[in-house]
Amino acid sequence: MFAIQKPKAGKGVTATAAAMGQPKAHEVRIKVTYAGVCGTDMHIYQWDTWAQNRIKPPLILGHEFVGEIIELGAEVQGYQIGQRVSAEGHIVCGVCVLCKTGQAHLCQQTQIIGVDRQGAFCQEIIMPASNLWPVSANISDAHAAIFDPLGNAMHTVMAFSPAGEHVLITGAGAIGLAAVAMAKANGARKVTVVEPNDHKRKVAEQLGADVTLNPFKDDVVAQTAADRPTRLLEMSGNEKALETGLKALLEGGKVALLGIPPKEITLNLAELVIFKGLTLQGVVGRKMFETWYQVDHFVQNNPAAVDALVTHILPATDYQKAFDLLEAGEAIKIVLKFTDN
Amino acid sequence: MFAIQKPKAGKGVTATAAAMGQPKAHEVRIKVTYAGVCGTDMHIYQWDTWAQNRIKPPLILGHEFVGEIIELGAEVQGYQIGQRVSAEGHIVCGVCVLCKTGQAHLCQQTQIIGVDRQGAFCQEIIMPASNLWPVSANISDAHAAIFDPLGNAMHTVMAFSPAGEHVLITGAGAIGLAAVAMAKANGARKVTVVEPNDHKRKVAEQLGADVTLNPFKDDVVAQTAADRPTRLLEMSGNEKALETGLKALLEGGKVALLGIPPKEITLNLAELVIFKGLTLQGVVGRKMFETWYQVDHFVQNNPAAVDALVTHILPATDYQKAFDLLEAGEAIKIVLKFTDN
Amino acid sequence: MFAIQKPKAGKGVTATAAAMGQPKAHEVRIKVTYAGVCGTDMHIYQWDTWAQNRIKPPLILGHEFVGEIIELGAEVQGYQIGQRVSAEGHIVCGVCVLCKTGQAHLCQQTQIIGVDRQGAFCQEIIMPASNLWPVSANISDAHAAIFDPLGNAMHTVMAFSPAGEHVLITGAGAIGLAAVAMAKANGARKVTVVEPNDHKRKVAEQLGADVTLNPFKDDVVAQTAADRPTRLLEMSGNEKALETGLKALLEGGKVALLGIPPKEITLNLAELVIFKGLTLQGVVGRKMFETWYQVDHFVQNNPAAVDALVTHILPATDYQKAFDLLEAGEAIKIVLKFTDN
Amino acid sequence: MFAIQKPKAGKGVTATAAAMGQPKAHEVRIKVTYAGVCGTDMHIYQWDTWAQNRIKPPLILGHEFVGEIIELGAEVQGYQIGQRVSAEGHIVCGVCVLCKTGQAHLCQQTQIIGVDRQGAFCQEIIMPASNLWPVSANISDAHAAIFDPLGNAMHTVMAFSPAGEHVLITGAGAIGLAAVAMAKANGARKVTVVEPNDHKRKVAEQLGADVTLNPFKDDVVAQTAADRPTRLLEMSGNEKALETGLKALLEGGKVALLGIPPKEITLNLAELVIFKGLTLQGVVGRKMFETWYQVDHFVQNNPAAVDALVTHILPATDYQKAFDLLEAGEAIKIVLKFTDN
Repeated sequence: MFAIQKPKAGKGVTATAAAMGQPKAHEVRIKVTYAGVCGTDMHIYQWDTWAQNRIKPPLILGHEFVGEIIELGAEVQGYQIGQRVSAEGHIVCGVCVLCKTGQAHLCQQTQIIGVDRQGAFCQEIIMPASNLWPVSANISDAHAAIFDPLGNAMHTVMAFSPAGEHVLITGAGAIGLAAVAMAKANGARKVTVVEPNDHKRKVAEQLGADVTLNPFKDDVVAQTAADRPTRLLEMSGNEKALETGLKALLEGGKVALLGIPPKEITLNLAELVIFKGLTLQGVVGRKMFETWYQVDHFVQNNPAAVDALVTHILPATDYQKAFDLLEAGEAIKIVLKFTDN
Repeated sequence: MFAIQKPKAGKGVTATAAAMGQPKAHEVRIKVTYAGVCGTDMHIYQWDTWAQNRIKPPLILGHEFVGEIIELGAEVQGYQIGQRVSAEGHIVCGVCVLCKTGQAHLCQQTQIIGVDRQGAFCQEIIMPASNLWPVSANISDAHAAIFDPLGNAMHTVMAFSPAGEHVLITGAGAIGLAAVAMAKANGARKVTVVEPNDHKRKVAEQLGADVTLNPFKDDVVAQTAADRPTRLLEMSGNEKALETGLKALLEGGKVALLGIPPKEITLNLAELVIFKGLTLQGVVGRKMFETWYQVDHFVQNNPAAVDALVTHILPATDYQKAFDLLEAGEAIKIVLKFTDN
Repeated sequence: MFAIQKPKAGKGVTATAAAMGQPKAHEVRIKVTYAGVCGTDMHIYQWDTWAQNRIKPPLILGHEFVGEIIELGAEVQGYQIGQRVSAEGHIVCGVCVLCKTGQAHLCQQTQIIGVDRQGAFCQEIIMPASNLWPVSANISDAHAAIFDPLGNAMHTVMAFSPAGEHVLITGAGAIGLAAVAMAKANGARKVTVVEPNDHKRKVAEQLGADVTLNPFKDDVVAQTAADRPTRLLEMSGNEKALETGLKALLEGGKVALLGIPPKEITLNLAELVIFKGLTLQGVVGRKMFETWYQVDHFVQNNPAAVDALVTHILPATDYQKAFDLLEAGEAIKIVLKFTDN
Repeated sequence: MFAIQKPKAGKGVTATAAAMGQPKAHEVRIKVTYAGVCGTDMHIYQWDTWAQNRIKPPLILGHEFVGEIIELGAEVQGYQIGQRVSAEGHIVCGVCVLCKTGQAHLCQQTQIIGVDRQGAFCQEIIMPASNLWPVSANISDAHAAIFDPLGNAMHTVMAFSPAGEHVLITGAGAIGLAAVAMAKANGARKVTVVEPNDHKRKVAEQLGADVTLNPFKDDVVAQTAADRPTRLLEMSGNEKALETGLKALLEGGKVALLGIPPKEITLNLAELVIFKGLTLQGVVGRKMFETWYQVDHFVQNNPAAVDALVTHILPATDYQKAFDLLEAGEAIKIVLKFTDN
């Protein structure tokens, strides 16, 4: 069957013909219908330092998808053939203290599909039943395909309740933009976005941002001084953005950190964290499955917001075009279609 | 009346004769009986960079004390002449959003006695009634004099519930040592202390530490790997200690930051905070007055632990000896006695 | 000056000429401009059992108001003559463990204006400066006058974060209706209202309720079974409403109890609370002053919702008409105007 | 193999010879070594109303046990033959919203071993691997056998952090007594126990209770008035005990409800819950598996406390004696030994 794989070290990906084994007792076989292209896929495509250290080609890419169950393992319960599902792409050990105490997203034995094992850019994938997410009926396939990155955004937004808060978001990529709409939908009284790209700031406004600032032109601290933010969602991985956000935040504020700095950061911990009594939390993956319920409800109630994020739906065979668009910064989120009809 | 003051820029302090005004309607006059000497007093004594930037001599030092109310302002309610009290040394504005929402310890208009205004190393002090703490009867004066630093320790210990947790404490100065006893008393199932000073590690063990490690000799991460800590109390302000503590912590762990790094730190935020899903909170001062209740109960129930911290009680007139002992590292906590009998 | 008082035991209130003393050092004198009429005022007007037990006539009624500072006590800081303020009507002791730990709304020495001491249905009132709330400039007087009941609603809504939750509200009086709009504004993904009165259900829908049910006609448990509520705001004080709400709630749900049952209730604690793992919290008054900040932001951002609640603004001299309208169920919220212009 | 079963409706149990099937792919076969006798077993033995409604004989009793894995299902990972394990006796559906969001103890499809399906009073039992608990090596078999009821106690103790709190426990049966030791070990500054039975109060004191009161002789509210409890653990299911506990509690206190009232209760919700701003939480089962980790640590660190609870270890063939002792109130906790050596 058709799949998109990293054939060997170096830039680029290729089409390949994949074979699939049999599902074990608690696994299911899924016909993939749509899959989202993520920044992680782009890292692998570009073969950057992170990819060189982590990825062992040949590897089928892709970890965001929706599809249809076409085979059930012998002892699977609670699912049926023909059912539409997305899935959590982090396959965890299930027996460590983190898995056993509601923190499976932090499991140190995690295998990520499309990263540590064969992925979802393929016409079929086998997944553990415990990873499945039965998507609500009134959600479109293109939206269902991107629950994974929407889940990153939601996990960050809900790390500390946004209800009634002034939420500052630094970085308006696909996930930061999703966070804008999610913060508003979950009760933020004001959302301020810091983002240098003019188009992204415009989309942020469409998605409900009350204020957008350009960090290269606006003085973020001064312009938020009259109504200081109480939450910071750091989604850029940029050291300077973090520093600015921490400065702007009201004392006692809460910070959810999702953006990954590419190297060590330098930080005035005393002035910006300790004396301000701030709380910072690192966010990774999605809570299994609190976050998925929250995303499901959000997508049902806010389809227009998700539409604004999915700028392209392409046939899977046009994968090269997808990577080109993303590399050129001309797309927010691209979804690939893996079925013919 | 007798007072210990910083007379002018430069190292040292001197005795002086102070005069005191009249208490306003909601203030009280207190006869100071005992006062603790803090690291902050030592900074002022030594006239380090922080002191040079913050302190405006002449200034009476001291912010940890106990005494007796000898005069009530015209409209003070709930206190009597002769009552024994300690007091919160942070005098806050009372009208800002932080003061109005239970975060007065973060008020940006705070005036600290002995730092921003005349302090408690004096036979009398005038304090707002709202800052008073009526010390429980079965607490000794020497213990009552140091509720302020005990409160820093308690605030840190209770930032995240220690009940049933493995608490890692980096730095066993007076406050770190207090935290050892407090973490145990508040339900930590294990306390591990990282401290280079041999004597302090020994005191930590006396106060209940289950494990003590020397960061220059022991591999902290390896030696805690079999039972990883779930809480980190960073009390050293040392960049390397923080890094080690973050590495040792179990994913999803909680970090309370009290120690003040003297300059910016460099931190692998991605590996040590974000991917581990850690939560970090800056701690400053004491919660008004949750922390004071917690300290009061702790001191009542654990007088021997507090005795182990108060290594010297000296007449206030021996202040020079107190600073010499602290400078030589030969004392943990020194309390000065301001009354003759 | 003009005031509305309960002159003696028995139904009714009368106009009277009141005299006012001098503000103490930390008090202010306020010219009352607008005041809301509350259910509590109606209890006192009707002289029901509760009123007979609690109220000692003669008493000036009223505890919801806005006005202008016209005199400052000698030591008041942070306020100016001419400033517009509302005020928390619970005057608390300030020294008990509840006042000292962020739970002043539970202080057992509380004196409520218009209940335990002279109230706000008067052209002037003297209040402690620590009770004042400086209303944001873009809020109308009529809205500013009812921060107190809006605060009851907000305290209940925010007792457990509504962000992303399905909130069930039992009882749509003035406070329940306010809660509908507040739950939506603070991120509830769905609000279901249970209320027998047709008109109130209609107003609930105008204020954003997604579903409204008539408990005498609809099977609340069956009609919420497909998407079970995760929060219950009990605002009726009705035993049957509480039972229905508890039954409808998803296991593990959270319940905020504001409605006051007039007598003891009978409850299947095992089936409805313990086996379901529910959490219930009693709500009284307003958090000082977290709730006030939340209300202030809500009113600024949702003036139309507050307009829908304030059905009448009458001259204070028309107080009898106000009580008649409320007694007839022909008004939701009535605000009295105490100034001539 | 030997088993203890309820053969048919009516009082009593009998020995029987049981046969066991084959473990499925994710199940294991366990040789039961020790099993605890619970109040639930006694209900079934006595055939009370609850048992008549819930139990379908013939049924092997027992849900608290420890044993050794003797066979692994085809796809079990993370466990080995010969490993010593206890197990969570609630077998949950794994796919409902409660199972998927860390609230599996509230799953409405739960099958309890020894209640809804064949139990652990048998020389062998087959369990899902996901229910297993690998007991720490330094825990004795008798202690390992009763993790289930210790877990009920721990779940209740940790429902609200006991660190630094005054914990009031109403009811000192086996679980209430365990809670005494657990509250102390987890940082309660004071534990007060209300229990009518003289012997149980004495055991409570041995386990660390600071104060014990006889509700038939002591005025609980008056005797706790000088230092009011801040936590209530209701473990009696007695309406009057609950009322007394709620009255005694400090305003703003937290209540964990474990005891099951045999019928509806009557409660002054306004005075005892709402006006006091209390929070109540129903507790059932054990959190999977946060509670198990907490119990494991507790038992390792406090073996003497658990010894005080296990008053009898009997051969399983002496089961009749066990029920007789429990019925006569002459035992706290009885453990049955199912192996010969």
